[in-house]
Amino acid sequence: MSMKPVDAQSALATAARLCARFEETAVERDRAGGTAKAERDALRESGLLALSIPAEFGGAGATFSEVFAIVRLFARADPSLAHLFGFHHLLLATVRLFGRPAQWQQAYREAAAQQLFWGNALNPLDTGTRLFEEGDKLRLRGKKSFCSGALDSDRLIVSAHDANGKLLIGAIDSARPGLVFNADWDNIGQRQTDSGSVEFDDVVLLPSELLIEPGPLSSPFAALRPCIAQLSLANVYLGIAEGALGAAREYTQTQRRPWLTSGVASASEDPYVLHHYGRMWLELQAARLLADDAGQGLDAAWQQAEKLDDAGRGDAALRVAAAKAQATQVSLDVSVRIFDVMGARSTTRRAAMDRFFRNARTHTLHDPVDYKLKELGDWALNRKLPKPTFYS
Amino acid sequence: MSMKPVDAQSALATAARLCARFEETAVERDRAGGTAKAERDALRESGLLALSIPAEFGGAGATFSEVFAIVRLFARADPSLAHLFGFHHLLLATVRLFGRPAQWQQAYREAAAQQLFWGNALNPLDTGTRLFEEGDKLRLRGKKSFCSGALDSDRLIVSAHDANGKLLIGAIDSARPGLVFNADWDNIGQRQTDSGSVEFDDVVLLPSELLIEPGPLSSPFAALRPCIAQLSLANVYLGIAEGALGAAREYTQTQRRPWLTSGVASASEDPYVLHHYGRMWLELQAARLLADDAGQGLDAAWQQAEKLDDAGRGDAALRVAAAKAQATQVSLDVSVRIFDVMGARSTTRRAAMDRFFRNARTHTLHDPVDYKLKELGDWALNRKLPKPTFYS
Amino acid sequence: MSMKPVDAQSALATAARLCARFEETAVERDRAGGTAKAERDALRESGLLALSIPAEFGGAGATFSEVFAIVRLFARADPSLAHLFGFHHLLLATVRLFGRPAQWQQAYREAAAQQLFWGNALNPLDTGTRLFEEGDKLRLRGKKSFCSGALDSDRLIVSAHDANGKLLIGAIDSARPGLVFNADWDNIGQRQTDSGSVEFDDVVLLPSELLIEPGPLSSPFAALRPCIAQLSLANVYLGIAEGALGAAREYTQTQRRPWLTSGVASASEDPYVLHHYGRMWLELQAARLLADDAGQGLDAAWQQAEKLDDAGRGDAALRVAAAKAQATQVSLDVSVRIFDVMGARSTTRRAAMDRFFRNARTHTLHDPVDYKLKELGDWALNRKLPKPTFYS
Amino acid sequence: MSMKPVDAQSALATAARLCARFEETAVERDRAGGTAKAERDALRESGLLALSIPAEFGGAGATFSEVFAIVRLFARADPSLAHLFGFHHLLLATVRLFGRPAQWQQAYREAAAQQLFWGNALNPLDTGTRLFEEGDKLRLRGKKSFCSGALDSDRLIVSAHDANGKLLIGAIDSARPGLVFNADWDNIGQRQTDSGSVEFDDVVLLPSELLIEPGPLSSPFAALRPCIAQLSLANVYLGIAEGALGAAREYTQTQRRPWLTSGVASASEDPYVLHHYGRMWLELQAARLLADDAGQGLDAAWQQAEKLDDAGRGDAALRVAAAKAQATQVSLDVSVRIFDVMGARSTTRRAAMDRFFRNARTHTLHDPVDYKLKELGDWALNRKLPKPTFYS
Repeated sequence: MSMKPVDAQSALATAARLCARFEETAVERDRAGGTAKAERDALRESGLLALSIPAEFGGAGATFSEVFAIVRLFARADPSLAHLFGFHHLLLATVRLFGRPAQWQQAYREAAAQQLFWGNALNPLDTGTRLFEEGDKLRLRGKKSFCSGALDSDRLIVSAHDANGKLLIGAIDSARPGLVFNADWDNIGQRQTDSGSVEFDDVVLLPSELLIEPGPLSSPFAALRPCIAQLSLANVYLGIAEGALGAAREYTQTQRRPWLTSGVASASEDPYVLHHYGRMWLELQAARLLADDAGQGLDAAWQQAEKLDDAGRGDAALRVAAAKAQATQVSLDVSVRIFDVMGARSTTRRAAMDRFFRNARTHTLHDPVDYKLKELGDWALNRKLPKPTFYS
Repeated sequence: MSMKPVDAQSALATAARLCARFEETAVERDRAGGTAKAERDALRESGLLALSIPAEFGGAGATFSEVFAIVRLFARADPSLAHLFGFHHLLLATVRLFGRPAQWQQAYREAAAQQLFWGNALNPLDTGTRLFEEGDKLRLRGKKSFCSGALDSDRLIVSAHDANGKLLIGAIDSARPGLVFNADWDNIGQRQTDSGSVEFDDVVLLPSELLIEPGPLSSPFAALRPCIAQLSLANVYLGIAEGALGAAREYTQTQRRPWLTSGVASASEDPYVLHHYGRMWLELQAARLLADDAGQGLDAAWQQAEKLDDAGRGDAALRVAAAKAQATQVSLDVSVRIFDVMGARSTTRRAAMDRFFRNARTHTLHDPVDYKLKELGDWALNRKLPKPTFYS
Repeated sequence: MSMKPVDAQSALATAARLCARFEETAVERDRAGGTAKAERDALRESGLLALSIPAEFGGAGATFSEVFAIVRLFARADPSLAHLFGFHHLLLATVRLFGRPAQWQQAYREAAAQQLFWGNALNPLDTGTRLFEEGDKLRLRGKKSFCSGALDSDRLIVSAHDANGKLLIGAIDSARPGLVFNADWDNIGQRQTDSGSVEFDDVVLLPSELLIEPGPLSSPFAALRPCIAQLSLANVYLGIAEGALGAAREYTQTQRRPWLTSGVASASEDPYVLHHYGRMWLELQAARLLADDAGQGLDAAWQQAEKLDDAGRGDAALRVAAAKAQATQVSLDVSVRIFDVMGARSTTRRAAMDRFFRNARTHTLHDPVDYKLKELGDWALNRKLPKPTFYS
Repeated sequence: MSMKPVDAQSALATAARLCARFEETAVERDRAGGTAKAERDALRESGLLALSIPAEFGGAGATFSEVFAIVRLFARADPSLAHLFGFHHLLLATVRLFGRPAQWQQAYREAAAQQLFWGNALNPLDTGTRLFEEGDKLRLRGKKSFCSGALDSDRLIVSAHDANGKLLIGAIDSARPGLVFNADWDNIGQRQTDSGSVEFDDVVLLPSELLIEPGPLSSPFAALRPCIAQLSLANVYLGIAEGALGAAREYTQTQRRPWLTSGVASASEDPYVLHHYGRMWLELQAARLLADDAGQGLDAAWQQAEKLDDAGRGDAALRVAAAKAQATQVSLDVSVRIFDVMGARSTTRRAAMDRFFRNARTHTLHDPVDYKLKELGDWALNRKLPKPTFYS
């Protein structure tokens, strides 16, 4: 088994091959739910897990824009894997942003060398996991929900609240004793994201594993973490919309019949069908440009690293928020409206055209879009930049 | 087993009891698909199948407005059964409108006395069934799609195209040899409508079973058939929206947590949550008034019977078209938007909150809403009344 | 000059005649702004100012539904006069709801006998008018904005805040010394509503003129006042939309040319033009039904008078709020969208097609529709009835 | 009077100065209508009329993206002048695209040297102007509408239909005898565009003035003309939206009071006000990115000149169409919605906040957006590129 990391140039081609493979079984895996073990292993073997790792640590040194182009591509066929892939890179970036050089350099090197898949057990809104000090040891106890990609992961970002209610974040080996990964994610969409619960049964956390220097959201640069998370989500939404439009297009052209009073010979000439396609494509195009623009903003901010200031971070955050809000809208609109251009026969379970909506609707609830719009409004009206939280 | 027909007054109470029963298993039956045999039999036993049959023929003599109030009620819990129930009454009305007095009087009496369930094998857009003359016998051959409620029916409305391409419609016993009811409806929504295919393997059709006097859409009165069909659909859509809003309401009140930057103590006070509820309720209220208004229009037109003129039929058709278009919109809007007021945790399969959307999306594709809006526009601009077809 | 009050039956015919007259000069009066003196006098002479006054006091005894049907009719041609006419009846109702029998009986009798026109100088949000006690006299000092119809009025409802900040309301003769009616309303829409300022230069207010028994919003019945106000506004919005659609229709049919790539011989057959008309008509129809429903709710509540309870008042208020919110939306949508069905040449000042938008936009800002939707949401989610204020 | 052409770098600064000057009188000139003589002369003096002319012919050699940045800037304050400025460069480009080198080189040189202002008398939909051959002379007779910027122009692009109904286009001196420029543009918006009529009273057209080599839309390159026109319009729409949002922002911050039930101390913290601002800003941002993207597409296509092929032209046309459709929507949305964030008092004529809507509504009717969306749909569904016409 070769695990030579891809270079940034060939990554897209590699991703396209993987995507084609994911697509073949996407409908059946959507039905089955559970862990996409074979596909996760294929990602490991592809070298793409090292995509965002700088070349000096053995990775491909890709920018976030390059990473997200692949997230978007994957999401056309399989937005569950797209999400896990995007969040893997987010979790690596979390070590970079919140931890000491020794921590992130090791994380980078190890991940690149062994093609490690990172999973998430950080959930700032869930206070069900507590951190206890016992002598010189820290122990995690409790349960946490929405742990996307924790199951079958190699490394894990975990969070817990200590006795003072403070949120602490650590990076640990997923094989650590006491970790229980529940296969309890059975939701209407994003069915292979394994976003279920993790139980912490007296799990040891070494002080050296805590990401406290500089710590979460401790500087403008550290506060890029939510920007990366949000833009990864946005690109998943976009990919869903692109996938939906592509599937609809093929269906309309090959299956749809003209309506009896339409006066046209083919559904592809129907004035209302064309108008729907025009609107969907336009919304999608706008969302693409916003996401690309946000990617450029994020890349520029990332490059400034510790020199990034509040204004620079705020600019990136705004562009990301705009991309996220628009992508939310377009993924819902398109995944609902495609049926209007496909007609009644497109509702068979075999065609599985509802998966775009179920995925979009599930994933777009990550955090409420109304508060994203409120943030944009606070900028537009009051020139206030988004205040960094784990969601902004 | 008692099958005493309900009277119109008590029908709503009977329906409410049935509805509560349907609701208990609605989620699991949505998952299973297939024929709702027990529930169909419960409908037979309830006497409600005779609801629209005039009292003189043994029925409850209810108006269409009364029938549709129950369709709407059923649809809150189970829009599949709501559709079958509404279309049963449509099919009875089809005999009344297209057939001779001897035909419809017998149909009425028989249905009331035996609580017969009528099913549909009429599909004017599907030319896959042909009518052949063999001596003095007529024979049906071919296959037809979208035959809601044909499976497990007692009587059937069938259609076929004859050698000249003319559409002929008949009413036959569902036990007639040669009829094959396929359990092949496996769609993303309206999963227990049995809207699959029926095969006609040299099925005999007696000339006396043809509904040719006065025949399909042959007069303003006969042309009320599509109005009944469309308004039944509209009330199913409305019920779906009502069911979705009710489920969302309970969820928001009991499960939703306030967003971290909302500044309110409870999600039920969140300004954006309230705004969403206000919009959904308003849309729904508008749709309810339009559907009620259309029901009154239809009742008035029906009462005129053979004296109904084009203007009277047109007035009813317009009001029905308005109700249908608005109900289409609201059922989609509400079933998508409820998730915004429920949040990420509402996407579990156990909660099954996606069934409202899957049902609405499937059922609203019956015929394209764009052409319904075009018809309304032709009235608004040109004062042209909808030209009767099987969809207008 | 004959001033015999109309009876309720003939009121609509009288109104239609007036409306036709208003329409002839509506465009030029929109341009000129200022006071519609001749038209106000025509209203006085028509007897319609006594429309809502019970027959026993010399009026036509019309219901609010009947009054608002005429408000809506006037608004098609002249929404300024429609507003003044609706608010005249609101101001009469204010005396009825907030005052003693002796007060409102006199107001009714006097208004019916002399065809008095009531104007408004009540503005609860404007604290610029103060009430001072000097010996046994009360005096009003200050200035108040948005005093629709005060100029050229015969009687006036005034409000002021006393030394304790309490809002007091009185009914006085418009000829009272010290009143200064400024002709300073020069706004983009509703240009002949005279909604300018009134100055109070030591205006005497007799204790007997105070409406303090039972007083403002002091009971469910007294709290119907904002319902009447809001529903009057809603009917003005509706009339604007109806007027806009009517004007557009004539324009499309007589002036619009088919677009060069439309493939149709006449703009009236253009699929997109028809779709726009369909949507506009549907929205309007929904708004009409909501307004009619609210009118019935208000009439029922009004008839209960002092027996009206919170639930009854709340029901009326909800139905009014729904009508108002929908009418807001439709008046804006239609007045913007008509241009899409009329084309570039419809923008001449001579055609004056922008007046519908300017009137709708100005009048719909009376109070923010977002808070109306919030109230509807508080009902839909929490079953909380609107809390009576001067706007709810 | 100095008329030294600006260089591309300093053009934006020059434009900003002019824009500030235009803004001072924009409201009063909107009221007055008519010709903006002083402002047009200021444009002449600024050198900006030579902005798009290649340096070798004495101009600033700016790209279309650079020209449109200034169109957009002007449109914030004065969309009439913005339109005239954009179309001046379009008309110069018309000579370049449709004419012989000798023709366009002379046009360029002359315009740069004398700061000539080009006006429009080309209207392919208006067949009211005819071309007659009399001996070796051509003569124009008739009348044409929508001749933006013809009045007070120095040079004119004219069109006429010849005896065979063929559209011919020429470039002439505006001082040519027989030309009558009517000051008859009195429309609700874009009031200083002088888009009135021109009469041709036996106007001589020299054969050398005909742009027939290569002629209108005769090649992919020549077919860039409508792309330039459409993108100029789009940037005017965008500037209107930017201007509206800017004006609203200042108003909300300085004038708006919090609503009585809002629970906030300042309107700038109102959750609904912020949500509106967020939505408006997001739509605008999307439109900006689409317009910038279209500008880049147009620049790239222009640089290919005669080597441009159908695919290249089609790509530019699609990106332009997307920008135009989105800008249409956003200019209407924002100019209507700003009032919701400003409140009732913002409707004074003095504030003149309706001018944004009047300008947007008038200008967005140039050609129907529905057919633009249809074209986008024909690409999205059928991969058909827009077929070049004067509007596509």
